[in-house]
Amino acid sequence: MPKNAFYAQSGGVTSVINASAAGVIETARKYPDIIGNVYAGRNGIIGALTEDLIDTSQESAESIAALKHTPSGAFGSCRYKLKGLEENRAEYERLIEIFKAHDIGYFFYNGGGDSQDTSNKVSQIGKALGYPMTCIGVPKTIDNDLPITDNCPGFGSVAKYVAVSTREAAYDVESMCKTSTKVFVLEVMGRHAGWIAAAGGLAKEAEGDGPHIILFPEITFDQPAFLKKVQESVDNHGFCVIVVSEGVKKPDGSFLAESGLKDAFGHAQLGGAATIVAQLVKSELGFKYHYAIADYLQRAARHIASKTDVEQAYALGQAAVEFAVAGKNAIMPAVVRVSDNPYKWKIGEAKLDDVANVEKMLPKNYITKDGFGITDACRTYLQPLIEGEDYPPYRNGLPYYIRLKNAPVKKKLNTEFKIK
Amino acid sequence: MPKNAFYAQSGGVTSVINASAAGVIETARKYPDIIGNVYAGRNGIIGALTEDLIDTSQESAESIAALKHTPSGAFGSCRYKLKGLEENRAEYERLIEIFKAHDIGYFFYNGGGDSQDTSNKVSQIGKALGYPMTCIGVPKTIDNDLPITDNCPGFGSVAKYVAVSTREAAYDVESMCKTSTKVFVLEVMGRHAGWIAAAGGLAKEAEGDGPHIILFPEITFDQPAFLKKVQESVDNHGFCVIVVSEGVKKPDGSFLAESGLKDAFGHAQLGGAATIVAQLVKSELGFKYHYAIADYLQRAARHIASKTDVEQAYALGQAAVEFAVAGKNAIMPAVVRVSDNPYKWKIGEAKLDDVANVEKMLPKNYITKDGFGITDACRTYLQPLIEGEDYPPYRNGLPYYIRLKNAPVKKKLNTEFKIK
Repeated sequence: MPKNAFYAQSGGVTSVINASAAGVIETARKYPDIIGNVYAGRNGIIGALTEDLIDTSQESAESIAALKHTPSGAFGSCRYKLKGLEENRAEYERLIEIFKAHDIGYFFYNGGGDSQDTSNKVSQIGKALGYPMTCIGVPKTIDNDLPITDNCPGFGSVAKYVAVSTREAAYDVESMCKTSTKVFVLEVMGRHAGWIAAAGGLAKEAEGDGPHIILFPEITFDQPAFLKKVQESVDNHGFCVIVVSEGVKKPDGSFLAESGLKDAFGHAQLGGAATIVAQLVKSELGFKYHYAIADYLQRAARHIASKTDVEQAYALGQAAVEFAVAGKNAIMPAVVRVSDNPYKWKIGEAKLDDVANVEKMLPKNYITKDGFGITDACRTYLQPLIEGEDYPPYRNGLPYYIRLKNAPVKKKLNTEFKIK
Repeated sequence: MPKNAFYAQSGGVTSVINASAAGVIETARKYPDIIGNVYAGRNGIIGALTEDLIDTSQESAESIAALKHTPSGAFGSCRYKLKGLEENRAEYERLIEIFKAHDIGYFFYNGGGDSQDTSNKVSQIGKALGYPMTCIGVPKTIDNDLPITDNCPGFGSVAKYVAVSTREAAYDVESMCKTSTKVFVLEVMGRHAGWIAAAGGLAKEAEGDGPHIILFPEITFDQPAFLKKVQESVDNHGFCVIVVSEGVKKPDGSFLAESGLKDAFGHAQLGGAATIVAQLVKSELGFKYHYAIADYLQRAARHIASKTDVEQAYALGQAAVEFAVAGKNAIMPAVVRVSDNPYKWKIGEAKLDDVANVEKMLPKNYITKDGFGITDACRTYLQPLIEGEDYPPYRNGLPYYIRLKNAPVKKKLNTEFKIK
């Protein structure tokens, strides 16, 4: 008898996490003798804890296929990290209770490091409670900070967005710098790892092109060196384009974005790293500036997604199900890079034990000696990840994104579980 | 004997101003008996005043064609408004001197209201100085605030960018709002007119879709009404997406963006309207927020340009030359809307006298009664302007934008002229 599957999206959404969902659901539908219905958690794992499940079998093949070009989390995601087994064993027991009630034998958890940790624990606790589950992680994070996998779905599209936006803004500023803005700052995500900021560097193809400066979270902000570099760039090229990670830190370890801006009531104000950097340039060097903060636009920008990224996101969802069907457990499919140029990749596997709670930082040799740019090694790594366009369909001048029916699965337990 | 032509880009650049340049240059090349070389001003009108001209005849047909998909100002633009004739007659006389020296008989000025005013004055002064020039304006402004023309090239693409970004961010926030960000704010350009902010409204197709609130520069910020609306949106839909114009004003007439943020040194800080609005939501309602500031990204985003916009930008450049060849003077080609649905338009003409220094605001009946949304009349107007995609070619995962040779024209006067 086939068992049902549970699928949930976790943490910050991306422009391709739904492509992974499509990979999971479409592949599961190919194995009706092994996998019954795929139930999705409404708003992620919270949907499991509260028995708020979505019956994906109610969605047409066309709707599921449309997930491949729809950003965000189609079933809802959540920022909710399950505690350790000792701290809140009740949560894990609740999950198993729900899974048992709905005859769920497969657990597919689509998220970053925390989520892989959760998958791992669910696998362990299921066994301990006499209800063994097949638990497979599906990698996702725009931060690209998961270990073992060569890269993470979600990252390539953010990288492409940031590289494209940096190039476009650089062209803009260059053409105006004679009499107007001389310094442009683009703030991008990546609180701990500088992968996204590094991607801005791909916009530069020739000497003089922007970006002229990248500020990485891995490199402590050196104000005098930074200002010198800005001045040099304006002197030599007439303008300066800066990509700054939201996570850039001062020598004391605090975020640059916490640099003492206060609102009218005297409250500390997280003005954004771009705001701080731009103000600094103005006050110290006197240059007219502009700044942009990409924020969610970068991770939701399905309109300019990387084709490589979309394909990998789908393939990893697909592989997760194939692994489950093959009887594997407590693993995560991973991207294995076979060659850089031509870029070739294949699906490998990583043990959840090895993935959980490990952050992959930008390697030292990916950052130039002065700390303000990316090396050729970094370009070689990043380049294939932004290759190819995969435009969504348009209707009325706007991308046509799918909204699923998200029909609820009838509750079987109907007991309350308080989320802490 | 053919006379040469002068072409210059003025003011803030757009993602399609180069398409107008292509229209001017390609069309001029079709009339070698009437128009000689097209000389472009390096960095706009400053290039004329300083005899820094670019010889566009050095550019291949392929390069000029590539301008159609290249954002920014390929010859450089400037923020430099010529004074009135009485205040600085010397500037106008200098222009005529340069044009005479280079046998320039046609003046094509690609810009907004100020530029149309300049074209008009050049036409008058040329006549007065016994060197009659054919002066034709080419409309351009993302702000869409020129009169007579139904819309301005540059606006449609910004509108599309803002509508697409709003939709994508709205999907993102909606899928996370259960446990994370509930309010998202996108700041867009448009210091005086709310056309760009209004375009964000196109992202909404059904009740509950974002944006839930648009803050227009035409509507004085009403804090209690705004907060009430945010609360309602979160209560009813779980989240709230806000598009705010950088030009939103407080009841005292000052910009919201000047609302008392101070940096570490106590200096007033223009934090951006989005920052202020987001902070307000947090401090008054307690909702977790995120905000994005699109800034130059919106006007440089050729990757998501509107096909309608690109076509009109080109056609207006083309028409400017056709008008000149037909012996017309002191006019600007304009877009005339023939019908809304199906959208049909044609080229008309506007007298520079009627265009110069007039700002077209968002009509009252384009804004909903509560001041926070757009009406059907507004949608009907905006919809066709974002229709169609016109993707640039890609190379290495990035848009391939052209950089011209921009070879200088040999100076004939070589006299110095001090820009004030």
